[in-house]
Amino acid sequence: MTAAAGVDQASGRASEFDRGTAVAPRRDQPSVYDAELDGGWRIGGGINGGLLLAVVGSALKQELGAVDGHADPFSLSAYYLSAGRPGPAEIRTEAVRRGRTVSTGAATLLQSGEDGRLVERLRVLASYGDLDAAKGEVRTTATPPVMPPPEECISTEHAPPDFLANAALLERLDLRLDPACVGWALGEPSGEGRIQGWLRLADGREPDPLMLLLAVDALPPVTFDLGLYGWTPTLELTAHVRARPVPGWLRVTHATRNLAGGFLEEDAEVWDASGRLVAQSRQLAVVPRGA
Amino acid sequence: MTAAAGVDQASGRASEFDRGTAVAPRRDQPSVYDAELDGGWRIGGGINGGLLLAVVGSALKQELGAVDGHADPFSLSAYYLSAGRPGPAEIRTEAVRRGRTVSTGAATLLQSGEDGRLVERLRVLASYGDLDAAKGEVRTTATPPVMPPPEECISTEHAPPDFLANAALLERLDLRLDPACVGWALGEPSGEGRIQGWLRLADGREPDPLMLLLAVDALPPVTFDLGLYGWTPTLELTAHVRARPVPGWLRVTHATRNLAGGFLEEDAEVWDASGRLVAQSRQLAVVPRGA
Repeated sequence: MTAAAGVDQASGRASEFDRGTAVAPRRDQPSVYDAELDGGWRIGGGINGGLLLAVVGSALKQELGAVDGHADPFSLSAYYLSAGRPGPAEIRTEAVRRGRTVSTGAATLLQSGEDGRLVERLRVLASYGDLDAAKGEVRTTATPPVMPPPEECISTEHAPPDFLANAALLERLDLRLDPACVGWALGEPSGEGRIQGWLRLADGREPDPLMLLLAVDALPPVTFDLGLYGWTPTLELTAHVRARPVPGWLRVTHATRNLAGGFLEEDAEVWDASGRLVAQSRQLAVVPRGA
Repeated sequence: MTAAAGVDQASGRASEFDRGTAVAPRRDQPSVYDAELDGGWRIGGGINGGLLLAVVGSALKQELGAVDGHADPFSLSAYYLSAGRPGPAEIRTEAVRRGRTVSTGAATLLQSGEDGRLVERLRVLASYGDLDAAKGEVRTTATPPVMPPPEECISTEHAPPDFLANAALLERLDLRLDPACVGWALGEPSGEGRIQGWLRLADGREPDPLMLLLAVDALPPVTFDLGLYGWTPTLELTAHVRARPVPGWLRVTHATRNLAGGFLEEDAEVWDASGRLVAQSRQLAVVPRGA
């Protein structure tokens, strides 16, 4: 079913996201995978950090899922080392510990640098398991964000052209921002440090656990809502996938409470169409210059 | 000054925390450090996870701090693999990337298992830098928790004896819990999923960035406030150190919003005596049985 969800039913072609996160095991090197980073996932100066995380997540899914059926990401922690570029990438994985309900993995994604030497893009630790086996009661005080329906929200096609020029990623997404959080697009940021909206993939590919790794880092940086419009490099991002999402729109919120000493934390929460909290993430990012 | 803060001024003896997190570089193996895990840091079935994180943090401080002066933890992500036991431990570190303002490291802590083979306790990725260089404006909407002064809070010496029996750790801490959050000790948990209190080390050793790694995992699990009294193993914990704490009491909050599918997230925040948010952490933990 997951495979079918990744194929355009009309054309029979794999979705952009599935092609973008596809990895092939290398024949002569166990636990090493090859991928191709597509320029269509660029944002600002490099490949989107959420997409990079999903590519590594895809390799770990093969490495950890093959033996124990632990094919769903429960938690990934990524330390970003340099900007990903369009082109080939290799992912080296390691099964650190295979447990009964959870397996732990490590991975690194590398690309050839300008001098031909391999350069690390991100280093990852992760826990994988089977989300369908993770039953149990739900006691949550977390509630989905309140916002107008997608058709009353702001599509990114209305964003300023100079913003769109360096945001190829946005063409792959159908992102509808809550009008209450887009004052920054008009030069009037709220100062609250909150951005939220509806999200789905533009080609209709339904969400799954791997796609949630993209979703937690797909919205404009929350610093826009603080009036800081520069680039916000991620130092560290940890994502927890809390449930398998049902098909349909996702609701995503980004918020920060503490911008200090040149860094800020950015918390993301993702709800599925049934109103369930399916992913939580936090990243530590660098405050744009001029702040 | 940090060294002096770790020494009892009267006796000239290193504090329990400094002795508990001391690491010695191994002469014949670069980047490998030896430590001794003291039984006084036990809680439940093993050594406290925050103390283990501080021991690894101490080794990375030596490894990364020696070259670039990046001696302060900015972010550590730990994946817990097995319970730490009292006795010798070895920490293998790797400088993944040395940057201008931030260096990235990796580490693993191992102990000899029952059959003499080395067993991994936790695997860590981390970013280090210089907190004194991390100046810049502070824009925060986060506010310290409101609670009665320490002398009106509940000391753990009043906790039930069967709880204290497996909590050697608590003798090393001066922990004063907000009376509003300790209904669980009387069998009347609030159900809100929140525990907060004042914290300092029992021997008077002042807080520093390394001690904050213990502080984020030192309170009773937030599940107690949900009426779940079992053991809550940590799968993953990421801590961000946001500022160097001033001397004095820390205020620590633990909260959860989403207990679901057998897992819960536990967010910790630590404020120093000046009212500044000095650390944030989130862990993904296993819900106790019977929930």
